Amino acid sequence: MDQPPFEPEVRVEDGAELLYGRGTVDNKGQHFTYPCAVRTLRDTTGLPCNVTLILDGEEESGSPNLLDAVEAREDHLAADVSINSDGPIDGSGRPSVSFGNRGILVVGLDVDGPKGDLHSGHYGGAVPSPAWELIRLLGTMRDEHGRIAIDGFYDAVEGVPAPDRDLLDEFEPDPDELQADLDVGGFQDGPGETFLEQTLYYPSLNVNGLASGHGEDGFKTIVPSDAAATIDMRLVVDQDPDRIFELFERHVEAHADDRLETTVTYHASMDPMRTPIDTPYFDPIVDAVTDGWGEEPVVKPSTGGSAPYALFTDYLGLPHASIPYGQNDNNQHSPDERFAVEHFRTGIRTSARLLDAVSTV
Amino acid sequence: MDQPPFEPEVRVEDGAELLYGRGTVDNKGQHFTYPCAVRTLRDTTGLPCNVTLILDGEEESGSPNLLDAVEAREDHLAADVSINSDGPIDGSGRPSVSFGNRGILVVGLDVDGPKGDLHSGHYGGAVPSPAWELIRLLGTMRDEHGRIAIDGFYDAVEGVPAPDRDLLDEFEPDPDELQADLDVGGFQDGPGETFLEQTLYYPSLNVNGLASGHGEDGFKTIVPSDAAATIDMRLVVDQDPDRIFELFERHVEAHADDRLETTVTYHASMDPMRTPIDTPYFDPIVDAVTDGWGEEPVVKPSTGGSAPYALFTDYLGLPHASIPYGQNDNNQHSPDERFAVEHFRTGIRTSARLLDAVSTV
Repeated sequence: MDQPPFEPEVRVEDGAELLYGRGTVDNKGQHFTYPCAVRTLRDTTGLPCNVTLILDGEEESGSPNLLDAVEAREDHLAADVSINSDGPIDGSGRPSVSFGNRGILVVGLDVDGPKGDLHSGHYGGAVPSPAWELIRLLGTMRDEHGRIAIDGFYDAVEGVPAPDRDLLDEFEPDPDELQADLDVGGFQDGPGETFLEQTLYYPSLNVNGLASGHGEDGFKTIVPSDAAATIDMRLVVDQDPDRIFELFERHVEAHADDRLETTVTYHASMDPMRTPIDTPYFDPIVDAVTDGWGEEPVVKPSTGGSAPYALFTDYLGLPHASIPYGQNDNNQHSPDERFAVEHFRTGIRTSARLLDAVSTV
Repeated sequence: MDQPPFEPEVRVEDGAELLYGRGTVDNKGQHFTYPCAVRTLRDTTGLPCNVTLILDGEEESGSPNLLDAVEAREDHLAADVSINSDGPIDGSGRPSVSFGNRGILVVGLDVDGPKGDLHSGHYGGAVPSPAWELIRLLGTMRDEHGRIAIDGFYDAVEGVPAPDRDLLDEFEPDPDELQADLDVGGFQDGPGETFLEQTLYYPSLNVNGLASGHGEDGFKTIVPSDAAATIDMRLVVDQDPDRIFELFERHVEAHADDRLETTVTYHASMDPMRTPIDTPYFDPIVDAVTDGWGEEPVVKPSTGGSAPYALFTDYLGLPHASIPYGQNDNNQHSPDERFAVEHFRTGIRTSARLLDAVSTV
C-alpha cells in the first residue's frame, strides 16, 4: 500500500519498525540525526565543539542554490572539518565512510543533416548521413584499448595514490561474481587494473543514449535527418569539468565533418573531490563510526558516483567525509520511501560520536 | 476534405479532373491502363501480340505472393519482354523509362549488455557498454573514404557500364542546387564520382536508425543495457542479398567484442535488376513513350530505389522496363490519393503504343 507522501507513519514489518514517508531516508531523516545528536550532547555531556548545520534540500536537483547560500554566509562557515550523511550504507550491510567522489560533466552531441529524413534508395551513398557521422565522431573519442582519445583528457589524472591501495582490497568486488551478477562476459580494458581502480580513480566517457531515425521495431529505409547522443564523463581529482568541456568541444571541432552541422551542449557538471586519507580526521571518524554502529565501517577513499561535496573541500577548504545511515532496502527516490527506525537511532548515536571525535583533533 | 477511400470521385480542381480514392494512382489506376489498352487495340487495329497481364496488389508489402504465383503459372508466362507502370513520372514533369533498380537488404544489429541500465558513476569505465560496442562495430564497416569495409562487399559490383554514361548526363542533378535543396554542405566520398553514379551504380550501407539508453531530451546518467541499429544496404547488379547477408554476419562475428552479445537479424530483401540498354527493345519502348506522351522520356538505366522486378529479369529471363504514369502531386500512400484523369488517358494511350511497339521486335 502506498503511504501518502506527507503523512509519515511508522509501520512494523517482520518485527522491524519502518518510518514511511517522502524523503524519510533521503534525506530528511538523515539530516535530522544531526540536530538530534546536538541536543543529546547538550543535554548530557555538553557540546564538545561548535557545530554549523547546513540542510540542503535540493541535492537531487544538483543543489542549484547551495553555492550561493554558502558564499553569502562564508563568514559563518569557518570550520575545521565537514561531514554529511546521505544514501544507504555499504551493500554488504556494514556501515561505510567515504572520503571522496568522482565529478561529472554531462554533454549533448547532436548532428544535424539533411532537412528531413530521406529515402535511402534515392539518396543513400551520396548524401552524408548524420547517423554515420555521429558513429564516426564518437569513434574518434576512444582508442582500441578503451582509453579516452580526447587530447589532454588525462592530463590532471593522478591514478591510485599509494596510501589508498590497502583500503581498496577490502571492498574490491570479486570480478567473476560481479560479471555473473551483471550478465556481462568480462570487464573493459583501459586505464586501471581492477574494477575499483577503474571506477574510482580514472575518468570514464559514457554514452548514456543514442537516438537517430527509426530505432524501434520494424524498419524504415531512410537516411535520417539527425542523430543525437547524450554523454556523461565521470571525472576524478584534479579534473576540472569546465576545462574538460573545453577539450571535448575542441575535439569535436577538430574532427567533425563540415558537410553536416554538429552541436555540443553543456548539460550539467559537478566537481570531483577527495580528502587524502592521511588527514588527521581519518582515525577519529572511523573510530566514531565503529563505536556508534557497533561494527567497523568499509572505508572508501572515493566513490564512483558524483555529489556536490567539492564545495566543502575546494571552496571552503575543509577535509570532508560522508557517512551514510540509510538501510539498503530504503526505496530511495520511489513511492513508499522508508527509514528503518533502528538506522535512525544508530544514526543519531553515530552523529553524536562523530561530533565528539572530530573535536579531539 | 478527405475522400472516403472506397468511394472514388472525380473532382475538378484548377481546371483539371482528378480521380480521388484509395490506390487510384498507386497502383489500381496504372494497372487499369493495360486492360484498357488491350481492349482499345482489339476494338480498332487488332491486338498486335499476345499479352499476359499480372496484377500484383501487394507490392507495398514486398509482393510476398508474387514469386509463388509466377512459379505456379510459369508455363503461361513464356514471353519476350515485360513492362510495368508504377509511381510518378520524372520530377521534371517529363515521362520516364527505367531499365533497372537497386536491390535492398535490411538487417538489425543488436548489442545486449548488462542485465539492466547501470549507474554510470558506479559502473562506468569498467562494465563494457553496448552503446560503445555498437558504435565501434559500425565503425569497422566503413573506411575513411566512405567505402564499405565489409570483406567481399564490392566483389560483384561492376560500376558504370560504358553505354549508360551518356544517358546519365541528361538527368544528373546540379550538385549545388541539390545540396542547397537538401540543406547539406556537400556529398559523400566513396565509390562513384557523381550523385547518379553513387546512387544508381554503387551499393550503400545506410544506418536507418540508432537506439540506446536515454536519447530524448534531458539526460539519464547510465551505462545502457542494450543498443540497436537498423541498417539497409542498397545493392546493385550482380550483388545477391543472401550472399551479402552472409558477408555482413561474417564481418560482425569477426569484429564483435565477445564480452557482450551481438545479434544480426535478417529483416527483408529484394534483388537488384537491370536490363542492359543495348536491348533491342530499347528504341521501340522509348519511341512508344515519346509517341504516347507527346514528349521524349528521361531514360534511366537504373533507379536508386528497390522494386520486385528482378522476378521478371532473373527468374523469367525477360528484358524489363518500367514506365510510370502518375502525376507528381498524386498524394501516393496518403489520404486523398489522386490520379489526374489526363495522366490516366495518356497512360492508356502509351500502354497501347507500347504493345504495338514491342510486337515489332
